[in-house]
Amino acid sequence: MNNPNIVILGAGYGGIMTTVKLQKSLGVNEANITLVNKHDYHYQTTWLHENAAGTLHHDRTRIAIKDVVNTSKVNFVQDTVISIKPEEKKVKLENSELSYDILVIGLGFESATFGIPGLKEHAFTIGNINSARLIREHIEYNFAKYNNEKENDQARLNIVVGGGGFTGIEFIGELANRIPELCEEYDIDKSLVRIINVEGAPSVLPGFDPQLVEYALNSLESRGVEFITGAMLKECTADGIVYEKDDKQVEIPSYTTVWAAGVRANSIVEESGFEHNRGKIEVRKDMRSPEYDDVFVVGDCALLMNPESGRPFPPTAQIAIQAADVVAHNVKAQAQGSNELEAFEPQILGTVASLGHNDAIGVILNDRKIFGWKATVMKKIIDNRYLLKLGGIGLLLKKGKFNIFY
Amino acid sequence: MNNPNIVILGAGYGGIMTTVKLQKSLGVNEANITLVNKHDYHYQTTWLHENAAGTLHHDRTRIAIKDVVNTSKVNFVQDTVISIKPEEKKVKLENSELSYDILVIGLGFESATFGIPGLKEHAFTIGNINSARLIREHIEYNFAKYNNEKENDQARLNIVVGGGGFTGIEFIGELANRIPELCEEYDIDKSLVRIINVEGAPSVLPGFDPQLVEYALNSLESRGVEFITGAMLKECTADGIVYEKDDKQVEIPSYTTVWAAGVRANSIVEESGFEHNRGKIEVRKDMRSPEYDDVFVVGDCALLMNPESGRPFPPTAQIAIQAADVVAHNVKAQAQGSNELEAFEPQILGTVASLGHNDAIGVILNDRKIFGWKATVMKKIIDNRYLLKLGGIGLLLKKGKFNIFY
Repeated sequence: MNNPNIVILGAGYGGIMTTVKLQKSLGVNEANITLVNKHDYHYQTTWLHENAAGTLHHDRTRIAIKDVVNTSKVNFVQDTVISIKPEEKKVKLENSELSYDILVIGLGFESATFGIPGLKEHAFTIGNINSARLIREHIEYNFAKYNNEKENDQARLNIVVGGGGFTGIEFIGELANRIPELCEEYDIDKSLVRIINVEGAPSVLPGFDPQLVEYALNSLESRGVEFITGAMLKECTADGIVYEKDDKQVEIPSYTTVWAAGVRANSIVEESGFEHNRGKIEVRKDMRSPEYDDVFVVGDCALLMNPESGRPFPPTAQIAIQAADVVAHNVKAQAQGSNELEAFEPQILGTVASLGHNDAIGVILNDRKIFGWKATVMKKIIDNRYLLKLGGIGLLLKKGKFNIFY
Repeated sequence: MNNPNIVILGAGYGGIMTTVKLQKSLGVNEANITLVNKHDYHYQTTWLHENAAGTLHHDRTRIAIKDVVNTSKVNFVQDTVISIKPEEKKVKLENSELSYDILVIGLGFESATFGIPGLKEHAFTIGNINSARLIREHIEYNFAKYNNEKENDQARLNIVVGGGGFTGIEFIGELANRIPELCEEYDIDKSLVRIINVEGAPSVLPGFDPQLVEYALNSLESRGVEFITGAMLKECTADGIVYEKDDKQVEIPSYTTVWAAGVRANSIVEESGFEHNRGKIEVRKDMRSPEYDDVFVVGDCALLMNPESGRPFPPTAQIAIQAADVVAHNVKAQAQGSNELEAFEPQILGTVASLGHNDAIGVILNDRKIFGWKATVMKKIIDNRYLLKLGGIGLLLKKGKFNIFY
């Protein structure tokens, strides 16, 4: 009998961690492992907001796949997934087609604009390395232009962030640190720059303890950030946005709108005909699709129900990384012909939202609230633990965050 | 009798050096000295091409006026000159008006586009700190966008430089060094980038020895630069240029056209009604305007005839700096009621054109040709001598170029 073909789609948190686990636990004579990814690097999605703000270089955020994947054990294919044909056990790529015996879908998220006019065309999203560094350059370019025009154009200095969730707030925290540097670089009066957060809910950071939210608002407002809550984005154009609040429409001139208020699972899942719940595959306990015994799902494409709350777990890196352990175990079992599959039970160890390079808020084990310096250290510990897990001490030293007294 | 009012317009090479000389040689009880400049800094025009390419930060190129001008001796007015009224001995500024007894015009150059359609609207010029850093950001922004588009757009990677004179060639030399870095930063294949020089004359670097020109072309072509000589720029649009060569029109798609083929004296001179020769005031031997005994001209607004060749001296920093010595001497004499004015005789000590950070060509005393490493050292010595002259050892250490083994 031939070795089973294990195909892993996507080298995000879930996909790369599954691959790394499998390359350790499966011998080359037991299975053929293939990892498919668009780029030749993995990146830490949770660090992209720093690249977008320009406070951290993107090379710190990305990790060459060859640095963590042993390409003598794993076949790496750099290509873009077009569609999955689960009935035929095939995956169509842009440049080829792959057959699998066991498939792991780790295709991540894409941004969702909910049909708001102009958002898709004119807003930026913090989705990947390319789009993150483009935001950095876009903001800088507008600052560079400001003093080259006879009439000062305020739209160059207004930055609108749509959405006050985790990503929006973390991005704003970095921006608040970056703007004074940019003002110095381009001889612009700092007080002219506006960072405006537009959030539909009555408050930012939904799900966080009100005391922590209050702390975050104070920290950001003291650095000049404006919050407009309970406001719905109605339109985005090349030179501004319109929001509605209290039945009134307000326009903000801006060449930079960053949309951080909506993500959905990669639409390839839905388009490939999988049974789905708002684009995601509601997986079994063992992380397999309900329809196909040979298809596992990890990361943002998987919907995991929290039996306690009756609602889905949020799509976080933390859960993707934990799930990869179970997926790797179960893929290995299945490749070896065993039916003893583990069940996945997420353990939320804590959540920390950064507010810039020297402030953060968070909740750790047993709902203990932390903020300020302690929270920034906790955030870096979380980031560093992942690097250690993914690539050992070598990777940690290369890409880790050690400036804890920053 | 009141102290005479000495007003110096412009803090370029000629204006700032005249000011610095006068503050040393004239007591505060002898004259009131006022320096007018648009910005609160002086900048080295001959370094701007490095800022534009992104190989040197603009803060190295600019010098705060308060760092070289003693503001307890000299009244510094940060304002923009609107017009000069020599009959009334007045200067109109954007925010005020000044009266003078002795005037020094050092208003520098502006770019000339010779009526070529679209150039003024769409081409960039290396004219000041603002426009130089905008070019740097514009190029970088286009590189950042390149991998964010479904269809790769070659116009983002084509950089057209109009003019193969001194500035054009020096800019290209820096660009040739910068492009590989930008390609690494944005994951772009270096071989896709085109740097294209379009020059009307049959050869670049007019006035240089043919052997040195050959050396320069080899150096730049080996780094991928393309030269199109004997080609006239016919039009510049937002997305490209059209040139004509051998009666054929050729289009090059490009979002970045840098116009380095034409400068003229500041048009304020012409608009203020001074007798002029193609915009410049053809000064007497003592650097005074032929019409007004109380108006001196220094730098690019002054036309100096070379009696040997019968043609004007080129408008260089070297001559402006030398002329400032004579202007300062004569202004002082006139302020003290003397009629003993010196005559200015330019001494061309040498000319070195940089070809990037480790190559250059030049001619020094007695027409000796130099190139390569020696020429780069000579270039730095010239630059450093100026800093020493302007602001002493303190300024030299702060802004000098010492990386001679670069």
